[in-house]
Amino acid sequence: MTDLTASIPATTRQVIRFDAPLPLDSGQTLAPFSLGVTTYGTLNESRSNAVLICHALTGDQYVAQKHPVTGREGWWSLLVGPGKILDPARYFIVCSNVIGGCMGSTGPLETNPATGKAYAIDFPVITINDMVRAQERLMGHFGIDQWFAVVGGSMGGMQVLSWAAHYPEKVFAAVPIATSYRHSAQNIAFHEVGRQAIMADPDWREGHYPDAGTVPARGLSVARMAAHITYLSEPALHRKFGRSLQDRSAVTFGFDADFQVESYLRYQGAAFVDRFDANSYLYITRAMDYFDLAAEFGGLPKAFAGTQTRFCVLSFSSDWLFPTSESRALVHALNAVAANVSFCEIETDRGHDAFLLDEPEMFAVLRGFFQGCATLRGLA
Amino acid sequence: MTDLTASIPATTRQVIRFDAPLPLDSGQTLAPFSLGVTTYGTLNESRSNAVLICHALTGDQYVAQKHPVTGREGWWSLLVGPGKILDPARYFIVCSNVIGGCMGSTGPLETNPATGKAYAIDFPVITINDMVRAQERLMGHFGIDQWFAVVGGSMGGMQVLSWAAHYPEKVFAAVPIATSYRHSAQNIAFHEVGRQAIMADPDWREGHYPDAGTVPARGLSVARMAAHITYLSEPALHRKFGRSLQDRSAVTFGFDADFQVESYLRYQGAAFVDRFDANSYLYITRAMDYFDLAAEFGGLPKAFAGTQTRFCVLSFSSDWLFPTSESRALVHALNAVAANVSFCEIETDRGHDAFLLDEPEMFAVLRGFFQGCATLRGLA
Repeated sequence: MTDLTASIPATTRQVIRFDAPLPLDSGQTLAPFSLGVTTYGTLNESRSNAVLICHALTGDQYVAQKHPVTGREGWWSLLVGPGKILDPARYFIVCSNVIGGCMGSTGPLETNPATGKAYAIDFPVITINDMVRAQERLMGHFGIDQWFAVVGGSMGGMQVLSWAAHYPEKVFAAVPIATSYRHSAQNIAFHEVGRQAIMADPDWREGHYPDAGTVPARGLSVARMAAHITYLSEPALHRKFGRSLQDRSAVTFGFDADFQVESYLRYQGAAFVDRFDANSYLYITRAMDYFDLAAEFGGLPKAFAGTQTRFCVLSFSSDWLFPTSESRALVHALNAVAANVSFCEIETDRGHDAFLLDEPEMFAVLRGFFQGCATLRGLA
Repeated sequence: MTDLTASIPATTRQVIRFDAPLPLDSGQTLAPFSLGVTTYGTLNESRSNAVLICHALTGDQYVAQKHPVTGREGWWSLLVGPGKILDPARYFIVCSNVIGGCMGSTGPLETNPATGKAYAIDFPVITINDMVRAQERLMGHFGIDQWFAVVGGSMGGMQVLSWAAHYPEKVFAAVPIATSYRHSAQNIAFHEVGRQAIMADPDWREGHYPDAGTVPARGLSVARMAAHITYLSEPALHRKFGRSLQDRSAVTFGFDADFQVESYLRYQGAAFVDRFDANSYLYITRAMDYFDLAAEFGGLPKAFAGTQTRFCVLSFSSDWLFPTSESRALVHALNAVAANVSFCEIETDRGHDAFLLDEPEMFAVLRGFFQGCATLRGLA
């Protein structure tokens, strides 16, 4: 792999290698493995100000800096940065690319030491818990006993919940946003469409395209297009595009992108191919599908029994991918174990992607929650 | 083309050829053209008992009899048949495959008389209005001056509305179900994903696969899978499949269909390929995208100004593809021109496909509406 991160200041990004084998839920192990990591700020003397940010399906560790491939602003620059809610002047902020990813962490594009070739489809199937188990190694690396907070939206929120369930004593505060404790049938269905689109592409080569020198770009692009619709809401699409035409005068009576929404989707598909690996897409969607804390613990309350973690659960009114009802079920389970939990459904018409956008109510809630927790933790 | 209809009694199906050119909205013409038609019952002496049924995107004329390809029951056998609401003993019921379709009507799979080869992607882009303009020729063929009723769901409902707007004097009663007066941005987006999936398949051959002897089966299958999710609702998927596994014991940590919902979707995709033409899918989805009665008439009320047609508008509470809000906007426009309109939102969790299913409330409303109209029309 070329070093995609070369343009980023060395103080904020690194690839950290771990030699001790990582046991996986599948029964396999991964060894050695690496995590692509960015950090912001400095760990304080009492090592009490570390915040772990968990990224979503197609996110990565470039949370608050220009992306090395796309050149776009960090995906959560609104939340993380000087003067922001998560200010590097106050917190030591860590974000790592998940295992199975394609931005420096061990995943299907990385070299399999056993063969000297890319893992490709021979990479072991991973779970959300596996991603978290890998992240947990960062605590030893940085000398952190407890995260002040673990924060994430969508699949990032699944990781937050896995953290809180499996390492309760290592998480002071947990902020799962626009997420669920288990992936729904509809969401599995959409993921399956995306996977089938990729696997239908002859350039996928039964998963061994890195060796064949091809890229299943058409399949990955279709997968992204389908997924992208689910990240928005019908009202947002209507407001953004409606039935507006590319050429304002008339339809062309053809199959080019007559409507702006078509052109937008095609762009989203094409741009995604430049920054994401198709096999990574298969593995990470699979990890989300497998996620089911309720089944794993034999009932959701049992996942959080005795927890001392403070929870702040957020959902968005127009998010139909991870609807509020799922956050509410999570809150009910936390209430059932007398957990310290606050919950807010943010009114917005922007759908699932709202967690990445400028949503003043979300930031107001997060500012208050982090401030309260910081006071409690002696960081004020 | 082989005669797919060979097993159907000759009295109920036929392919009707029209030699007079059919002008299309695109400015092109189609000549000659044919319609694959089924009929049930007998036209009465006053020619007042004819009902036109308009089919949905992937439907066809086999409304109340075994499908010649799949062997499955007719898609609206619950509504049409002896003792049913639309009883052939009372009504002369007509259903024709839309132009652009692949079940006997002129479409991309049929032979272009100019070349002697299949039209394929050289077939002209058609609109909902074009489909209706072709159907209108059936009136002359059968000697009908006015349909007692024009009925249809989803894209069938679009045709109903086009009929009512363009031929108001030829439609005594109109029943648009689970539909809209214009295709939404989100629906265009889903259609575009399906088209891109088809066009990404190398076997599509830039649309000329009939000549090349290939079939873009993988692309069409992915298109169908994505669309199929939109026909259901999240609660219906959850009730039907939830997170149930194919093999009840455990996940396989692989990319086979672990979950029942995956297996179901794959089956839906594979089965569709056996009965539908990929280019037809492109053309018919495009026709739906282009549908916008409000834009065409400069405001939706103008589409129905002065109408004497009786309308019965039905929507389903869990239909997120054609939500009730769109039916309500239609009803408001009909109210604005003092049309005779009844409207009912049926409570169900089965999503858009509810119009094809056993929904007692829907049938109760339809039974009452048809009975009232029949009395008024002197058919009682």
